[in-house]
Amino acid sequence: MKKSLGAGTILPTTPVFVVGTYNSDGKPNVMTAAWGGICCSSPPCVYVSLRKATKTFDNIVERKAFTVNIPSENYVKEADYFGIVSGKNVDKFSATGLTPVKSKLVDAPYVKEFPLNLECKVIKIVEIGLHTEFIGEIMDVKADSDVLNEKNHPDIEKMKPIICNIVGMTYHKVGNSVGQTFSIGKEIQAT
Amino acid sequence: MKKSLGAGTILPTTPVFVVGTYNSDGKPNVMTAAWGGICCSSPPCVYVSLRKATKTFDNIVERKAFTVNIPSENYVKEADYFGIVSGKNVDKFSATGLTPVKSKLVDAPYVKEFPLNLECKVIKIVEIGLHTEFIGEIMDVKADSDVLNEKNHPDIEKMKPIICNIVGMTYHKVGNSVGQTFSIGKEIQAT
Repeated sequence: MKKSLGAGTILPTTPVFVVGTYNSDGKPNVMTAAWGGICCSSPPCVYVSLRKATKTFDNIVERKAFTVNIPSENYVKEADYFGIVSGKNVDKFSATGLTPVKSKLVDAPYVKEFPLNLECKVIKIVEIGLHTEFIGEIMDVKADSDVLNEKNHPDIEKMKPIICNIVGMTYHKVGNSVGQTFSIGKEIQAT
Repeated sequence: MKKSLGAGTILPTTPVFVVGTYNSDGKPNVMTAAWGGICCSSPPCVYVSLRKATKTFDNIVERKAFTVNIPSENYVKEADYFGIVSGKNVDKFSATGLTPVKSKLVDAPYVKEFPLNLECKVIKIVEIGLHTEFIGEIMDVKADSDVLNEKNHPDIEKMKPIICNIVGMTYHKVGNSVGQTFSIGKEIQAT
């Protein structure tokens, strides 16, 4: 039986995006966002939705750039911390010992220790409500060479990304594979 | 060492959204999209990004409504099938034996057998490039009563959602918890 839960942002899996920006004084900053994802294949685009109250909001408005950094499960504490404290009060890189790297392509820093980094230039800003969506064109993706497979693709088992269960308020590893995309469904197609 | 992978939609975890709509003749349709996510807390909003070539695109433009249905791992084949074939040629509900339920709140059907259903009314359409983003206000969320915990929240272990690894082209279960949100990071804050 279906039960109505009311209108709300109820979803079992959201990504854990660590968003890198520069403050107006040039200091690197990061925050963690669960409201994010890919929104276009060509040009390749990713978005993050942010509240105006965040430092990262101001930074993106000013510099029109951000990075999306994907932490491995080894950095779940750091990722959570980046979502708890504000860059208005704390130097989050210093507090965690992580290393900001200046992007050569966009006006934002990425996190050296995280296995995957997307460098993004803002192409659209969409006002929705409490959150504003920043759509960034992905200018390049960088990955640690030790998470790449023989095809030069990031391997999910080496990357060990985490997802966020916003309702249960838990971070999770990615589990076992249950099928190939554009493939397992062909069993139905053939019937 | 970081290696440049070029500009592309490289992300280890995307959601598996089965998007429900009505064709112009009133026939229920579904397609699977990986470009989707929450984009605002208030009003609660979720988006899907679609190519103009899809039937679902036309349907959403016409009816200004869609549902987001979250399959459990038991329905990975159906979810994949919904992304392989087009509703222009096939009645996907008939082909899979799944049941469309008419929403009382929005002009779109949801999938009875999937544990979580978001009923959405389009409030913004954002042209990006190959994909167009449809931002829907979540008017209600419905869940199977047997996936709810004692707080009436959907329990991720009962729901058994899947995620998609677009680069490796694999679907995955959600794995073990590695920490509580807004909590595990306090260990850093305290130091």
